[in-house]
This record gives sequence, structure tokens and C-alpha cells, in this order.
Amino acid sequence: MTLLENLQWRYATKQYDPNRKVAQEDVDKILEAARFAPTSSGLQQFRVLVITNQELKEKIVPIAWDQQIVADCSHLLVFAAWDRYTEERIDTIYDYTTDERGLPRGRFGSYTDKIKALYLQQTAEENFVHTARQAYIGFAMAIAQAAELKVDATPMEGFSPDELDELLDLKSKGLKSVLLLPLGYRDATNDWLVNMKKVRNPKEEFVIEYK
Amino acid sequence: MTLLENLQWRYATKQYDPNRKVAQEDVDKILEAARFAPTSSGLQQFRVLVITNQELKEKIVPIAWDQQIVADCSHLLVFAAWDRYTEERIDTIYDYTTDERGLPRGRFGSYTDKIKALYLQQTAEENFVHTARQAYIGFAMAIAQAAELKVDATPMEGFSPDELDELLDLKSKGLKSVLLLPLGYRDATNDWLVNMKKVRNPKEEFVIEYK
Repeated sequence: MTLLENLQWRYATKQYDPNRKVAQEDVDKILEAARFAPTSSGLQQFRVLVITNQELKEKIVPIAWDQQIVADCSHLLVFAAWDRYTEERIDTIYDYTTDERGLPRGRFGSYTDKIKALYLQQTAEENFVHTARQAYIGFAMAIAQAAELKVDATPMEGFSPDELDELLDLKSKGLKSVLLLPLGYRDATNDWLVNMKKVRNPKEEFVIEYK
Repeated sequence: MTLLENLQWRYATKQYDPNRKVAQEDVDKILEAARFAPTSSGLQQFRVLVITNQELKEKIVPIAWDQQIVADCSHLLVFAAWDRYTEERIDTIYDYTTDERGLPRGRFGSYTDKIKALYLQQTAEENFVHTARQAYIGFAMAIAQAAELKVDATPMEGFSPDELDELLDLKSKGLKSVLLLPLGYRDATNDWLVNMKKVRNPKEEFVIEYK
């Protein structure tokens, strides 16, 4: 199936079958799609946390506005972005990239100097506006990959990031949670959304042409 | 090819062949992938502008940090997000959705009351932090769709949004530019990036498991 067909197939699953688990092989592909997403300056300013521990998933229910799907899903993905830019983080990525490409370290020095000058004078909050945006690109790729595999997924912003960060001790990792993506298999009998028509803004309104 | 293979194939093209144009049929599919992207509460808080007018593309070069690719590409997509939430915008989407689903208007009233209470007390700047994030989901789907069609694309944040908004008169449309996506076909002979190894953070660092 094509990406467009997969996007038509998917929907924000509201009820999971708690007894069906997603195969590790499929979860791995979903994570790889997020990992290979493009990001600003190639910095990959986010990480993906994979939660399968049932006790931990249950603890997230009240943090996620009492939405039971975070407990009933098979795997709960948490997309968490860098809490700020640091010189070390930028250098680590670029050193690794040049090493992998067999280029001398510092080959992209004039570029990294430019992005350091831009980001390091900003506040951590301003940095996070930017890093969090990158997580959405990986998030979208994970959603597309899940749909390709006919794994259901629920894109979720509805939770308290500060509480989740504390529960998962993300501060010590220099991360802040941005998005949740429960994965699993729909309980089609009990999901109110499954049979509703997918509605989108008409193309004529969505696209604006400058010919 | 699978999504993962397409993500391996794609790269941020740095040099386009200015003589090769992308077929309208392919551009339409790329726009459809963005249109069918999931967004927060289904509000589709962004639009896609399609610029093929050469004079206009040339005017964007200095606004895009003198990057010639915005003029050399076949189609320049601009992802622009709502400048703020309004009651009317939220109601328009939900009225359309209930109409399309054959449901009474107001069927999701308790939900829309909740999101209005959340967004309408925020500043326009706070609203835009959220609407801009949604544009990244559509942006990622467009990138994935282009790769599926073997159309090259360059994810770009490097431009002056305020200047572009003025040039395209986006204020009158209630939009603010967020991202650029030139589309076209690579000039493989002159593109310095085309043969460099794609490098990503190793999986062991990118994924954090809570078993």
C-alpha cells in the first residue's frame, strides 16, 4: 500500500485490545523511521522512550488526563526533546558525523559556529521551542511507519509534560517530554471513532497556489 | 519500496537541476500527504502554499539566507500555520466535520468547549507555538511522500519568517510561515551532499527502554 493509502487507513485509535501485543520486529521498524527522520542541522534533538512496563503505564494514566489507552496499548512511545542546546551536544553529533564519513573533525566548523552563535545565546525555553518541533518530524514518521505495518497508533499531546518528566526522571537525561504515541491493535467493537468518516479540510482551502 | 527504504534514499538536496520540473500529479500526492496528516484535535492548523512563479521564487532567495535552491527548485512549498486560535476557526472545522459525518452540529461541543477554554485564554504567541508544531507533522508526511515518488526535497527552516509573511501577504490570511520545502530533482554532479554517508545517532542512544 502507498503512503496515501496508509494515511487513509490510520486513525487516532481510542480503544486498544489490551491482550494483543505488537511484535518487536514491528516496533523496531517504527523506531527506525523516527530515527531516520530529518531534523534541523541533523542534530536529532529528540529521543524515543519505549514503555512496556505495565505498572509504569498505569502510573501514566492520571498524568495523561485519565486516558486509559496509555495503559491498554501494547507499547507506549514517549517523544522527548533536548531541554536546551549546549556546545557539547552539537560537537558530539558533528564529531560523530565527520568520523563516520571519514572526514576531519571540524570539517563543518564554520557551520557549527553559526548554529552555536544562534542557539547558545537563547534561553533554554527558546531552545526548547525549536527542539520540540523536531520531535514532531520523528513522530510523524513513526505514525506513517506504524500505518504501513497496520499497527494502530494514537497521536497524543494531552498529558502533563512536567509530571511525566518527573516520573521518568527525564531532567537527568537533559530531556523534556513532548508527545505520546501508544501503539497496539484497535478494539474495533468498542472504539467510537473507528467507523466515523475521516474528514479533512478541502484541498481548495488547504492549498494556496502562487503561479 | 518501504518507508524505511525511502527514508534511506532521501537526503536534504543542496543543488537542483533547474530544468527539471515535478509532474503536477506528483505534487498533488505530496500535498495530499500533508493534508491527511493527523493534527491536534483534527484542527489542521496549517496550510501549504505552492510557489511556481519564478519571479516570486527569486524574491525569496535573499529572504532564505541567499540559498539559491529556493529559485532552482521546481516547486517551492511553504508550510504556514494559524497565527492564533479563534472560536470561529474551531467552530468552522467542527461544523464541517459533523456535517460530513451526518452528525448534529455541536455533537463534540463538550470537547470544543474544553479546547476553546485552553487556547482562547492564551496569547497569540502561545497559540502559535502550538499551531506551528502541527505544521511539522504535515511537513514530515510531505517529505515521506516525495521520497516515495523519488522526488527530491529539502527540509528548510533557514529563512526570515516575518519577511516571507510580508512578501506573501500571509497576515491577511491569518497565517505565519514556518517551514520551506523545495521540491525537484537533484543535480547529482554538483551537489556536495549527495554522496556523503547518511549518519544518525546510534539506535542504542536514540531509544531508551522502560521494560
